[in-house]
Amino acid sequence: MVDYGKQALDIHKKFKGKIHISLNDKNIDLDKLKLYYTPGVAAVSLAIAKNALTLKDYTWTNNNVAVISDGSAVLGLGNIGPRAALPVMEGKCFLFKYFAGINAVPIVIDAHSAQEIIDCVKAIAPSFGGINLEDIAAPICFEVEERLAQELPIPIFHDDQHGTAIVTLAGLINATKVTQRNLGQSKIVLVGAGAAGIAIIKLIKKYAPQANIIAVDSKGIISKKRQDLNDSKKNVLKLTNHQNLSGSLSDAVHQADIFIGVSSPNILSVEMVKSMNTKPIIFAMANPDPEIKPNLAQKAGAAVVATGRSDYPNQVNNALAFPGIFKGALDHHIRHITEEHKIKAAEVIASLVATPTADIIVPSINDKRLVVSIAKVIV
Amino acid sequence: MVDYGKQALDIHKKFKGKIHISLNDKNIDLDKLKLYYTPGVAAVSLAIAKNALTLKDYTWTNNNVAVISDGSAVLGLGNIGPRAALPVMEGKCFLFKYFAGINAVPIVIDAHSAQEIIDCVKAIAPSFGGINLEDIAAPICFEVEERLAQELPIPIFHDDQHGTAIVTLAGLINATKVTQRNLGQSKIVLVGAGAAGIAIIKLIKKYAPQANIIAVDSKGIISKKRQDLNDSKKNVLKLTNHQNLSGSLSDAVHQADIFIGVSSPNILSVEMVKSMNTKPIIFAMANPDPEIKPNLAQKAGAAVVATGRSDYPNQVNNALAFPGIFKGALDHHIRHITEEHKIKAAEVIASLVATPTADIIVPSINDKRLVVSIAKVIV
Repeated sequence: MVDYGKQALDIHKKFKGKIHISLNDKNIDLDKLKLYYTPGVAAVSLAIAKNALTLKDYTWTNNNVAVISDGSAVLGLGNIGPRAALPVMEGKCFLFKYFAGINAVPIVIDAHSAQEIIDCVKAIAPSFGGINLEDIAAPICFEVEERLAQELPIPIFHDDQHGTAIVTLAGLINATKVTQRNLGQSKIVLVGAGAAGIAIIKLIKKYAPQANIIAVDSKGIISKKRQDLNDSKKNVLKLTNHQNLSGSLSDAVHQADIFIGVSSPNILSVEMVKSMNTKPIIFAMANPDPEIKPNLAQKAGAAVVATGRSDYPNQVNNALAFPGIFKGALDHHIRHITEEHKIKAAEVIASLVATPTADIIVPSINDKRLVVSIAKVIV
Repeated sequence: MVDYGKQALDIHKKFKGKIHISLNDKNIDLDKLKLYYTPGVAAVSLAIAKNALTLKDYTWTNNNVAVISDGSAVLGLGNIGPRAALPVMEGKCFLFKYFAGINAVPIVIDAHSAQEIIDCVKAIAPSFGGINLEDIAAPICFEVEERLAQELPIPIFHDDQHGTAIVTLAGLINATKVTQRNLGQSKIVLVGAGAAGIAIIKLIKKYAPQANIIAVDSKGIISKKRQDLNDSKKNVLKLTNHQNLSGSLSDAVHQADIFIGVSSPNILSVEMVKSMNTKPIIFAMANPDPEIKPNLAQKAGAAVVATGRSDYPNQVNNALAFPGIFKGALDHHIRHITEEHKIKAAEVIASLVATPTADIIVPSINDKRLVVSIAKVIV
């Protein structure tokens, strides 16, 4: 296996990070400085003081976002803190530029209560055209996003929740085509009731209200009998498990059509897959190691297998969604990214695969149509 | 006169702001993404989690700063708020890149008490290698800078205070040479006891402890008799007015050697200049209109006149100092920018004028030796 870690350390050291600031105007002389700084810039400040809507005409906020994290739930690494999270956030900013030409600034926050994060993001928000929240642990991430969306006049998007949900839905739209299913008539088991899992449940229920979803966490099926549910898991119950099942993951997957994992490596056994309905759909998206290895799932009868990895077919990758979502939001001055926007984005992503097959349910992240096609529907 | 305002509005609109983000590595393919983002970046995060000192090796913090303002004291415009301040901060970031190649990010803060500003800057500080505070009103700026310098492990520099003080001292070093004075034996009247004025007083007294400084604000000479002094002005008294003079500006300037204005336009009359010692030095740095027009000061007998403007000789411009100060602080991993650093920087700036004359007491901001020469002494 390739040692990505060693190569990554080397290339980060070589380039001293991943991004830098450049000047828009390449022809600068001392006279130009009088326009970009004093005395000329005073007129620009006065224009914005007079009409705050002109902020986007005169500053880089027309095309910038902050990528904000407290480092509490980073990749598969967990709560590693703001400094150790910075290379990931700088990497996200790299992706913003590479895929969508958006100027993203990595901001790691040394503050961890919901209120502290909210106060900090609200304070710096006038500097940016949008806010991408990243790798903030559940359940704090829910309150942070909800309050910021209510209280700030710019789009807020927690990519771990909604990016994952959008791309998962896009994949499900095509995977159900391949297996000739109807999502609303499917039994879906979702494992991992954190930020991503809850967002996936909400978006599926918005798209296909009749879908029968069973949510499972590390303690088993989320049911009314459980005494240990926090508020966000109690909300999950409103959308799931209407038959009030209880038990373990293997109880849950029995005769299920679709497995969606955003949880831990290797928790789905061959026997469990065999107990599902014929030709089941398996989305095993735990990172870096999926809930079941794709070849095992296929041997056990899975018709479509997706993971979060680029070295297997069907990579369910947030980079399919967030660049176009923000491009549309910034270009069209969208204040709120709604559930309708997310469903439209998922439909657009799915539609870019002309003929879905077991091995191609989502486009490549390199598909140049993605950003512009998604941006068009974020209006 | 040139309409800088109209031109500035046009060029800001044309380029949609002044800065953007670029990628350090220009040769990107999907394999590289695995190093800059998942899975490779995890090794970089773990290295920083293990040793926080490697943050600068692997992220852009080795060469970035935040330019932070609450918009409470912007240029000559006053308290115009964070949004209207953004083009000025983006302009400052432009100067950071243009003069020193430093990647500066404009952060305007919608928070205005000292404690709120401190909390916000501390929270986002792990994202940056240094903090340039800008256009924050006195006296809040003093507490903000002092507390941040104590509590953060990166250099904090309030340019309105120290940049102005450094460049003023550099100019005074050469102006006293031109007029064959000794700064420590001079009577100096400083008008405008805000952020810049107080910093100038402190730095002159550090450089030339015997200097006799009389500070004047809008109510007259700052003296023990005054009942209206806030804490920062009480501190000014400890460094100034040992003869305990009281009265107006015209009382203060009588037989003074040096006038330093960081106050309001046209407050220094021809008669006042005539009442000063022979061949006085006049630094009339109010922006955009100086305390006295240079030609009037010269007619009244001034030997050296400096302003903040580029269209007169002797422009006392912070851009002479801050790029080199930060370049040195970042390159040498300096945690605190001390009074000794500031004096060394002033001496370096002064030394770049081989033969000071009445019309050339400071180098041009285009002098390519500035950044590298100053950076060398910030060690």
